[in-house]
Amino acid sequence: MLEPYIILVNPQLAENIGMTARAMMNCGLYNLRLVNPREDHTSDKAISAASGAEEILYNAKVFESLANAIADLNQVFASTARRRDMIKFVYTADAAAEKIKQNIDKNMKCGILFGPERTGLENDDVAIADAIIEIPLNPKHCSLNLSQAVLLVGYEWYKLNINSAKVKLVTNKTKVANKEMLHNMFIFLEKELDECGNFHNEEKRPRMVRNLRNIFLRSQLTEQEINTLYGVFNHLINKKQ
Amino acid sequence: MLEPYIILVNPQLAENIGMTARAMMNCGLYNLRLVNPREDHTSDKAISAASGAEEILYNAKVFESLANAIADLNQVFASTARRRDMIKFVYTADAAAEKIKQNIDKNMKCGILFGPERTGLENDDVAIADAIIEIPLNPKHCSLNLSQAVLLVGYEWYKLNINSAKVKLVTNKTKVANKEMLHNMFIFLEKELDECGNFHNEEKRPRMVRNLRNIFLRSQLTEQEINTLYGVFNHLINKKQ
Repeated sequence: MLEPYIILVNPQLAENIGMTARAMMNCGLYNLRLVNPREDHTSDKAISAASGAEEILYNAKVFESLANAIADLNQVFASTARRRDMIKFVYTADAAAEKIKQNIDKNMKCGILFGPERTGLENDDVAIADAIIEIPLNPKHCSLNLSQAVLLVGYEWYKLNINSAKVKLVTNKTKVANKEMLHNMFIFLEKELDECGNFHNEEKRPRMVRNLRNIFLRSQLTEQEINTLYGVFNHLINKKQ
Repeated sequence: MLEPYIILVNPQLAENIGMTARAMMNCGLYNLRLVNPREDHTSDKAISAASGAEEILYNAKVFESLANAIADLNQVFASTARRRDMIKFVYTADAAAEKIKQNIDKNMKCGILFGPERTGLENDDVAIADAIIEIPLNPKHCSLNLSQAVLLVGYEWYKLNINSAKVKLVTNKTKVANKEMLHNMFIFLEKELDECGNFHNEEKRPRMVRNLRNIFLRSQLTEQEINTLYGVFNHLINKKQ
């Protein structure tokens, strides 16, 4: 599948280019373009900062001008922290990810510009873009380092491209018990509790039983855990007084 | 409003605690707890790395044990990159943010645990938590540094707490023109184009007019820009041959 191009405009430090590569790989992004990097993006510093994402650095393409770096692209976003005096569409990072995905589905090539560390993109570089990405962050403190800006935008892209459950019970080798197994455990426990006098108040018994069952129902017990609980109950029952 | 507590368990480097404070402030989070930090969280290194978020460091609370650090909390999430051999609910970062917000709305105090830099949380620390947060990232390369993990979780929290438009046209001091102003510009331009022979093919004229109007309609022109365009058209019209 096509993916957006990450374009660093005049990046200053090799270390930041390396950290950007790392953040890109975190998010499944592999296409890096560099416009006039001040330091060598394949230096030891860069490779070390990439923490295993050095293939992105070795495959990065270097350009002498921003115009060349975006020449083959169809739509370009400029990532900025400061609001500019320009009339442009401004996207949140997640909305930009959606827009880029829609464009890529139409076989359009998209790029995202990130400016140099100290100053961010110059106004002329922002003007060249079709739209702006502003990452929603605390307006009192919204400065990010370069790789973190890439990470947040990339993270929104990655999220959009996976279909994973937002909440799931991880059960590893076992599985959530079926209702029969659970019911049998309830019956076993309640019989034992009847016998030892836990439910001596006949009037309150139904409510007590429901409450107790709810505790275990909320846990979504696995088969393994039900066996564990049988062991626990049996040990308690047989505890020497 | 209540906010989640960020709890760093056995963090190693002062610099990473500082960067975490910076990331927290990016996301409007101010409550930091530290369990047995190895280095001083108010050292020069930490303050420098915090880039202006040092108030979070000065206000951070230090605990000798994780149990003490979470004693007053009602629900605790453990942020982990590795899947553990434990049967627990696993939340994506955004789902966890939603859950935390729901809990806070019920006046529950929530915390999020992050482990030490090299190893992440120990299994016993994960076991103490109610649920796990796994940030969805490229499984082939999901290691993040400590402050980046805090940044991504905090970013989801921040996003949930703001109501900003996902896409908006920023117009600064001017505003999007009303339809009358736009229509008048179309009429002006089309009259001029009629006079100079641009629409000489009478049959194609309606389609050409529509296409031209669509170009400008997609731009959502502001009042200022319409005046700019009148100037442009007039200069072209009056250009000396």
